[in-house]
Amino acid sequence: MTEKFHGYAAFDKEGILKPYSYTPKPLGDEDIEVEISHCGICGSDLHTIRSGWFSTLYPAIVGHEIIGKVSRKGSKVDDFNVGDRVGIGCLVYSCGECDECTTGYNQLCDKMVLTYNDMWKDAEGVPTEYQTHGGYADKIRAHSGSVFHIPKEISSAEATSFFCAGVTTFTPLKHHNVGPGIKVGVEGIGGLGHLAIQWAAKMGAEVTAISEKRDEAIKLGATHFLNVMDQDDIKKFTRSQDIIISTSSNPNTDWSKYMNLIRNHGTLVLLGLPEVPLQIPAYSFMRSIKVEGSLIGGSQDIKDMLEFAVKHNVRPWIQKVPMKEVNEGINIVHNGKARYRVVLEN
Amino acid sequence: MTEKFHGYAAFDKEGILKPYSYTPKPLGDEDIEVEISHCGICGSDLHTIRSGWFSTLYPAIVGHEIIGKVSRKGSKVDDFNVGDRVGIGCLVYSCGECDECTTGYNQLCDKMVLTYNDMWKDAEGVPTEYQTHGGYADKIRAHSGSVFHIPKEISSAEATSFFCAGVTTFTPLKHHNVGPGIKVGVEGIGGLGHLAIQWAAKMGAEVTAISEKRDEAIKLGATHFLNVMDQDDIKKFTRSQDIIISTSSNPNTDWSKYMNLIRNHGTLVLLGLPEVPLQIPAYSFMRSIKVEGSLIGGSQDIKDMLEFAVKHNVRPWIQKVPMKEVNEGINIVHNGKARYRVVLEN
Repeated sequence: MTEKFHGYAAFDKEGILKPYSYTPKPLGDEDIEVEISHCGICGSDLHTIRSGWFSTLYPAIVGHEIIGKVSRKGSKVDDFNVGDRVGIGCLVYSCGECDECTTGYNQLCDKMVLTYNDMWKDAEGVPTEYQTHGGYADKIRAHSGSVFHIPKEISSAEATSFFCAGVTTFTPLKHHNVGPGIKVGVEGIGGLGHLAIQWAAKMGAEVTAISEKRDEAIKLGATHFLNVMDQDDIKKFTRSQDIIISTSSNPNTDWSKYMNLIRNHGTLVLLGLPEVPLQIPAYSFMRSIKVEGSLIGGSQDIKDMLEFAVKHNVRPWIQKVPMKEVNEGINIVHNGKARYRVVLEN
Repeated sequence: MTEKFHGYAAFDKEGILKPYSYTPKPLGDEDIEVEISHCGICGSDLHTIRSGWFSTLYPAIVGHEIIGKVSRKGSKVDDFNVGDRVGIGCLVYSCGECDECTTGYNQLCDKMVLTYNDMWKDAEGVPTEYQTHGGYADKIRAHSGSVFHIPKEISSAEATSFFCAGVTTFTPLKHHNVGPGIKVGVEGIGGLGHLAIQWAAKMGAEVTAISEKRDEAIKLGATHFLNVMDQDDIKKFTRSQDIIISTSSNPNTDWSKYMNLIRNHGTLVLLGLPEVPLQIPAYSFMRSIKVEGSLIGGSQDIKDMLEFAVKHNVRPWIQKVPMKEVNEGINIVHNGKARYRVVLEN
């Protein structure tokens, strides 16, 4: 009898999810099987189900903010036990041995396997017949190096958001040594931005929320508030920020406006992935400004983030939706109505 | 009798230069007057005479690669004597006291005055009636902090190029600590690129010239050669470079192609200033890639560069044109025929 996992998959670019069962990869010696209790809905899931970035491998079960309990483990897995509460993020495998993995950038490992819309590889790196499928499902298997213990202080529903939105925002702030005396602008208050504001504020930075959601910005810990449609605000904050974390994927963003808010030698960190090329005037870089990309985070970043979240009481703002109402959950996100993260619950 | 300086000015966007005389700013206590012997023609000059970036203040005498002899000096100038051979670059003034000036970034000083197409300010920073005019002329006045001694080993004609092309390419390589083990790609072999290749090679880096000029690239010190129109070359150099120095102002550059040549965590340094916005796909940043701007260099960078040029025998490749044939000189540059820097000679 072939073993099957059951989830909700997109079958084409329309992105309507329907029940779908698939045969998981065989459980390897170093693998862990997780019985999923919760999965967050991430913007990447929406881009993927409608092939917004690249062609998607349909049928596709998405979801890479996964929390659940270990239901099985391979013979060589020592640091997890059946029943442990664990999380899985955007990767189900990284080699652990290459330059990227050993310097904390597992997410850039050449051999890494994405949690969904990817193929498991064999020992020689050749794609197998097993497609990866994400967390909008009952179970998942992953290499134990991509599975993380969840601290007891964090609820399973809340823990989900840390595995993509959380680590994506935490990592660049950590790598830039954000702390007292640093001015951090956070562009966009959504799934990513509402966590970026909290991290930066708890790190001691002076945070400016660049958004129209003034009340939420202050509640989340922002010191200042900047509406880019307000010319007085723009004037007041010109060349003021050491770092701006850009979280939105808006294809119409006027990047020169954001560049102008950064002080000489400052940095614009791109976390959102608009589906069209960024258009940035060359002269706006000339004050020694950097634009840099940052992709989720590595294994150590995830561990550091969870520890920081416990210590400084950082939590996502979430709303729960039953797994079987997944299409409604997606609509909430798609329509920009999430405040700020929708979590599917089995 | 009003004192006049004589040069060749553009009078409108057509950019044809004609003789023009102007009244220079009065010589201040800390100012130096230079009798110009040579001035390089820089791409910026061409952008400016036809208002390519912004509206130009016409009539405009351009030129910011200026070599000559001190003909007068203010009463408080101690470190220069009449007759000294000196150079002036893109600035004729920086305050010397602000955070930018004291950290070596005079070119980002809020109070700086550009060598041409700018207005001299009074002590309160209010623009005076005196417009700045550049080196396509017989004389120029500048604050002594923006004037530099020329080492005896460097000829006046060759020294010109160091004051914009030279310091613009030297500075980012210096700031990135380029040396043995670092792979540097130089995009474009022209006024800037032919110096960038020499600097990087003499710093000990492994240099890849990204151009169609193979023979010149090797002569300049490049180890490798990459033609971006050749798919095999592109494949061979994918994700290989630590730093790419982009020198061209081509509005049609396919930036994703260059991003793809940079290894994870690498940097694209923008030196050229295309007149249209750069279009860069967001995903191409995601391997922890940085795009950064660099504007000419500061006073210490200029001094370090001249010392390095003497020590390692770096010189521009130039061709001389008499000052009175300035329009022909400009045409050579405009038509991409310069190999690699045209120098006007009085």
